[in-house]
Amino acid sequence: MKKFEEKTINSKTIYDGKVVKLQVDDVRLPNGQQAKRELIKHPGAVSVIPITKDNKIVLVEQYRKPLEKSIIEIPAGKLEPGEVPEITAMRELEEETGYTTSHLTKVTSFYTSPGFANELMHIYLAKDLEKLTVPKALDEDEFVEVLEVTLEEAKKLVEEQRIHDAKTNYAILYLDTQELL
Amino acid sequence: MKKFEEKTINSKTIYDGKVVKLQVDDVRLPNGQQAKRELIKHPGAVSVIPITKDNKIVLVEQYRKPLEKSIIEIPAGKLEPGEVPEITAMRELEEETGYTTSHLTKVTSFYTSPGFANELMHIYLAKDLEKLTVPKALDEDEFVEVLEVTLEEAKKLVEEQRIHDAKTNYAILYLDTQELL
Repeated sequence: MKKFEEKTINSKTIYDGKVVKLQVDDVRLPNGQQAKRELIKHPGAVSVIPITKDNKIVLVEQYRKPLEKSIIEIPAGKLEPGEVPEITAMRELEEETGYTTSHLTKVTSFYTSPGFANELMHIYLAKDLEKLTVPKALDEDEFVEVLEVTLEEAKKLVEEQRIHDAKTNYAILYLDTQELL
Repeated sequence: MKKFEEKTINSKTIYDGKVVKLQVDDVRLPNGQQAKRELIKHPGAVSVIPITKDNKIVLVEQYRKPLEKSIIEIPAGKLEPGEVPEITAMRELEEETGYTTSHLTKVTSFYTSPGFANELMHIYLAKDLEKLTVPKALDEDEFVEVLEVTLEEAKKLVEEQRIHDAKTNYAILYLDTQELL
């Protein structure tokens, strides 16, 4: 789909970091005028909706530096270069929650902030969780606390804005429409 | 909530643009170690789920430079400094769709990408739409095409990934749970 395409006249990389790359492009608009676009390039991310055998949702609380507070989310992580999303999903599930599963079901995928970033978020459902006998290590700069909650408790956390992010709000609304719990 | 707080040791602004600011912070982790955090500061955004009197959802198609393609979304826009979200919502509804409404209902709000950005997205529902007699101008670098679709058509657009972003996927799922349409 190239409707209203903005052709790149000039592209400048301002910063190329561990997580994000910032690029500022000069573009030719459909009316022939020029404009500047600030673009965040991101490798994409994967999240998992983990459901225990007794129908609890497994969530993780962690500090989010951009918000300067901790919030409660479904487990998630960045895609490594060339990685298949299911592999990322399984790794993040195991590392962050200590559970594993025999299979993942794709729920949806969406761009989180298409106005300024190309981050694509893939969401999977993980049922029939089994506890890992040997826990996996988190990344060395990662600290999370695991919670297991009912759907009603999760909906209360949304109301209280302790759950307050796109993938997790979507996940709770999704579970509320399903006959899973 | 300051669980697992990451205290800022040093903060450096890399870029301060029209839409985003990029900041790289050195932080002290809960275990005493140091880490770097790449943070995108964003003014926040507002989107509207507009429902016509004949129960159609009003959507806009626009080119998204970060994705290098056009996608179909609910109308949305950035908060201006100090602006109340309802004002932004009404402005974006009027400018992008040519409709207005007598009242807006808050649906939810969520951080779009809490791992690297502080963008907070507010979502409103706008019913009882009235056509503006005098259309409002879009921003000079903005080009959109308006579509009016049924809920079934919107769900098909999600399947086809023509609708492919957090706020719009959430909006369609939300409408599917309501008795509105």
